[in-house]
Amino acid sequence: EEDGLWSPEREARVSSLCLPCAGAPSAAGGCRAAGQAPASPAASYPQKNAEILSSQYGINLFLAGLLLTFAWAVHAVGISKSHLLSYLITLMLIQLLWMLWYLCRSCTQRRLIRDKDTHAGARWLKCGITLFAVITLILDSFKIGYYIDFSNCLSPTEGIFPVTHAVHTILQVYFLWCHAKDVIQSFKTLERFGVIHSVFTNLLLWTNGVLTESKHQLNEHKERLITLGFGNITIVLDDHAPQCNCTTTTLCSVFSQGIYYLYPFNIEYHILASTMLYVLWKNIGRKVEHHQQNKTPFKFHGITVGMIFGLIVLTSTIAIVVVYLIQIGGSKIKSELALTMFYLHAIFVLALMCTAGVVALLIYRLEDRSLDNSKNPARKLDAELLVGTAAGSWLLSWGSILAIICAQGHPKYTWYNLPYSVLVIIEKYVQNLFIIESIHREQEKVNEDIKTLRIVTISRGSTLSLSPLYKEIYNGRAARDSGDIPCLFKGSICGRENDGAGVAREEMSQDNSLVMHSASDFSFYSRNSVTNNKRRILKNIAAFLFLCNLSLWIPPAFGCRPEYDNGLEEIVFGFEPWIIVVNLAMPFSIFYRMHSAASLFEVNCKT
Amino acid sequence: EEDGLWSPEREARVSSLCLPCAGAPSAAGGCRAAGQAPASPAASYPQKNAEILSSQYGINLFLAGLLLTFAWAVHAVGISKSHLLSYLITLMLIQLLWMLWYLCRSCTQRRLIRDKDTHAGARWLKCGITLFAVITLILDSFKIGYYIDFSNCLSPTEGIFPVTHAVHTILQVYFLWCHAKDVIQSFKTLERFGVIHSVFTNLLLWTNGVLTESKHQLNEHKERLITLGFGNITIVLDDHAPQCNCTTTTLCSVFSQGIYYLYPFNIEYHILASTMLYVLWKNIGRKVEHHQQNKTPFKFHGITVGMIFGLIVLTSTIAIVVVYLIQIGGSKIKSELALTMFYLHAIFVLALMCTAGVVALLIYRLEDRSLDNSKNPARKLDAELLVGTAAGSWLLSWGSILAIICAQGHPKYTWYNLPYSVLVIIEKYVQNLFIIESIHREQEKVNEDIKTLRIVTISRGSTLSLSPLYKEIYNGRAARDSGDIPCLFKGSICGRENDGAGVAREEMSQDNSLVMHSASDFSFYSRNSVTNNKRRILKNIAAFLFLCNLSLWIPPAFGCRPEYDNGLEEIVFGFEPWIIVVNLAMPFSIFYRMHSAASLFEVNCKT
Repeated sequence: EEDGLWSPEREARVSSLCLPCAGAPSAAGGCRAAGQAPASPAASYPQKNAEILSSQYGINLFLAGLLLTFAWAVHAVGISKSHLLSYLITLMLIQLLWMLWYLCRSCTQRRLIRDKDTHAGARWLKCGITLFAVITLILDSFKIGYYIDFSNCLSPTEGIFPVTHAVHTILQVYFLWCHAKDVIQSFKTLERFGVIHSVFTNLLLWTNGVLTESKHQLNEHKERLITLGFGNITIVLDDHAPQCNCTTTTLCSVFSQGIYYLYPFNIEYHILASTMLYVLWKNIGRKVEHHQQNKTPFKFHGITVGMIFGLIVLTSTIAIVVVYLIQIGGSKIKSELALTMFYLHAIFVLALMCTAGVVALLIYRLEDRSLDNSKNPARKLDAELLVGTAAGSWLLSWGSILAIICAQGHPKYTWYNLPYSVLVIIEKYVQNLFIIESIHREQEKVNEDIKTLRIVTISRGSTLSLSPLYKEIYNGRAARDSGDIPCLFKGSICGRENDGAGVAREEMSQDNSLVMHSASDFSFYSRNSVTNNKRRILKNIAAFLFLCNLSLWIPPAFGCRPEYDNGLEEIVFGFEPWIIVVNLAMPFSIFYRMHSAASLFEVNCKT
Repeated sequence: EEDGLWSPEREARVSSLCLPCAGAPSAAGGCRAAGQAPASPAASYPQKNAEILSSQYGINLFLAGLLLTFAWAVHAVGISKSHLLSYLITLMLIQLLWMLWYLCRSCTQRRLIRDKDTHAGARWLKCGITLFAVITLILDSFKIGYYIDFSNCLSPTEGIFPVTHAVHTILQVYFLWCHAKDVIQSFKTLERFGVIHSVFTNLLLWTNGVLTESKHQLNEHKERLITLGFGNITIVLDDHAPQCNCTTTTLCSVFSQGIYYLYPFNIEYHILASTMLYVLWKNIGRKVEHHQQNKTPFKFHGITVGMIFGLIVLTSTIAIVVVYLIQIGGSKIKSELALTMFYLHAIFVLALMCTAGVVALLIYRLEDRSLDNSKNPARKLDAELLVGTAAGSWLLSWGSILAIICAQGHPKYTWYNLPYSVLVIIEKYVQNLFIIESIHREQEKVNEDIKTLRIVTISRGSTLSLSPLYKEIYNGRAARDSGDIPCLFKGSICGRENDGAGVAREEMSQDNSLVMHSASDFSFYSRNSVTNNKRRILKNIAAFLFLCNLSLWIPPAFGCRPEYDNGLEEIVFGFEPWIIVVNLAMPFSIFYRMHSAASLFEVNCKT
């Protein structure tokens, strides 16, 4: 039973690669109870307190930063960008110190962090954050270059900030790679403060990125309005360019233009880091039951159809975005054409996604598998974030719908906005249902037994002696499963239970052809193919939706904002109020797409 | 063991008074399993889905309403107040229909709603909501009178709205009295939609009330600014008075003035109803363990000191508010005097509250009782609301602190704002810690045994035969308690366990003097008095803080807003941005005071 199965010890060995001084700490890793109080009710006493203490500290940290950001955004008297940057630099330095302390301590006292939450910090999540972090480092180097170019008229904080940020990024990614799965059981109060500090520091950096990006988008929108001749709106460009000349003329425009293409990745990086750290915080002091989670790596095999359709959507979206950004603001006709094209494409994609989601949900209704409701902070956060951030784009959609209904004049292209907005609402509604149900479905439990079986088979080098062994394991399993629920009503419930066992049986058979041959029941074949087909459809849908969500992340992240250019909402609500609504809701809408793509990737691996 | 103890059956009998047709349904109440599926994992399958389905529906309902409210607030083209009111009327009518259906069904099929969550819908909460509802009904009658007076120039919706609202209020309070504790186990999906619809309808009515109140406060503030001669701010009074003359001149001013003194109660009513309904929603389909919760009624005895100090604070606050509202806006000197007076009083009260909170927390540190971490949606919501709504006033305080630090000129009275703002942050920080720890502390478990004992004693009419019985129960209890946690380390943990048993022993003895005499251990007496003293101090602190929170609810609810009148923040952030921040954060800040008062009342009963 030793190899081939996932085990916490093995995970610890893998993560020990992270630690430069972890040459021979695995000896201490075996020692479990020494020096640590067991989880008695008395030990949980200060824990709730520490939770409230630290979360309140974090909230205040965040609110103070938020107000500084707000003050900068509204050009408050006496508060400049350098105040805000100094605050952020201080927070990052504190986090750096804490992370270094944590890394040193976990290096010297490895046995203290033995528990791991297998659900937290999935490998693809770590890969994603590393990718975004690398682009963030490029952004930081651009910012440093920009500062050098304009150093005459920029405050020193604008130079210190990207340097600190780069160091912070490197150490934080290293920290998350090695410790995202930790279930901290010692120094809980101090650790809670450190982790929550990191969570809110990242959230503030996210806010800062979002605001910079929003200001840039708003400036571009205002420039377009000037081009189109809307002189009746008081247009003031905000923080547009420094007040002095560039020292090295060639690179200036590269830096100042390039920065805004890199910001979307920086924004995603911080929000991802923030969620991973939040899960770490929720896990502090938790008692983890050692679920033997199956590692299901991503496979391209069997999802060709979904991938092809998804890639078509992806490429067409990129094409549309490029055309849109070139056309919009050129002239009134060009703008209207760009908008019409954008809406038609989006309506088509969203309708496809809705259909795919509904089909997936119908398939789920056909099979009656139970949901896993065990405690899992990472999954709970995922579900809450999906619904919470979808609210951002729902708000925008309701705004558009209201504007179309109430507006006096309707240029033709604005009518496309109505089905578009309705579809955005429905699509997120359906997709959330699909993702949340998928991540709550129980993993096929039987896999473990099958794997054990396979290992036993290989080690014995014989396939003939397998039949009785398999039967023994299988019967034991089935008895255990139905034993969980006492059969109170011989009719309906037990019937359902048997169905469940049937499904389990199918999946067993499909995973191991050896076993399938040794089984005598021939109905296996037909049932197996039905389940296989269902699984294949679900996998294709997940892959398709994954690529669609990635595609739909691109337009808003890179400045394709029909909510601005459409004009109708601005007329109904007024320019300022609508701009405020869009700037508040858009970051969540953008984050939704990236987050749902990440979740769909997980769904695809799990199905 | 039958009488004197709380039991679900008895609770069901009490609540059967609610139902006009519940003459003889208790026969059916005994029948448990008939016709209902047991809680198998398979049955929980559609439940998670129903939860997501309904919550997404509710969020969309809310967002659409929020945008209508926003559109009205920013005077959007083509959207008037009557649109918003029509939407609200529709929502209320749907909720009415659902509540009627639910009441009829629960009346005819009583056995379907047998489970009760003893933590939800506490009696004092129901009394509180009834009080607020009565005042809301007066507000509705005022609004009807106002509509009749100005019916020439008001749209019919302004007359229909208060009528619908009054009916809605009456039925909803009845519904909450009878069904707030329900744990719904049938028609779960439909019920979920009904309950979440009610939650968000109340939230929208709350938003509407908050906005009306904010507009009124802003108008008053602008009028004061005009009086004080600040002509440089563009002042436009918003929705100030109807465009036509009043038909009955005598009552007009009574109605239009009176409405704004009643709004704070209406606002509290809706948010309370919303939280109670949310707990009902969270409880749908839940498996309730039948905790035998002790009913601990509120007693005035033993909290005299806390009450006296609290009442002093309450009366002085009311006096300060009256003087403030008369003085402010009169002239510059009068305004400054009023502000200084307000700040000094608030600083004194907040300092006292901080001290009380810290003392209470230190007392908790002295005794080492374990926290109850069992599932309890009502308590979880309480804790989250305390921290979440405190964030509203923390935001305002950080705004003030930032403004004081960054402002160029400092009139003398503005300096009082700094300690005031800092104390607001610290006081809520400490108070939240105290309340959340208090509501998580385990009830003294031994009470049940003691009560049983008392009943046995009374029924036997003899005190002499008690000693062996008591010893048997006590020993059984102690063995059970220490049996829960295996004594792994003979040193520290078991020592602590014994301490816990000691505390239990003390409380037993204090509750029943009969038992105390039969016990041979004389150290009981001194330990008992220490625990009693601690309890008395805690009860006094809770009573004091309860009255202080009620007091601090009054100034912001009735228009005493130094955040406006102080002027410093408006200069630093700008008039418009600061007004937006205040109007967004203030409702949460006001709600915090009422909610913490309610929680402290519960703490007082439980201690």
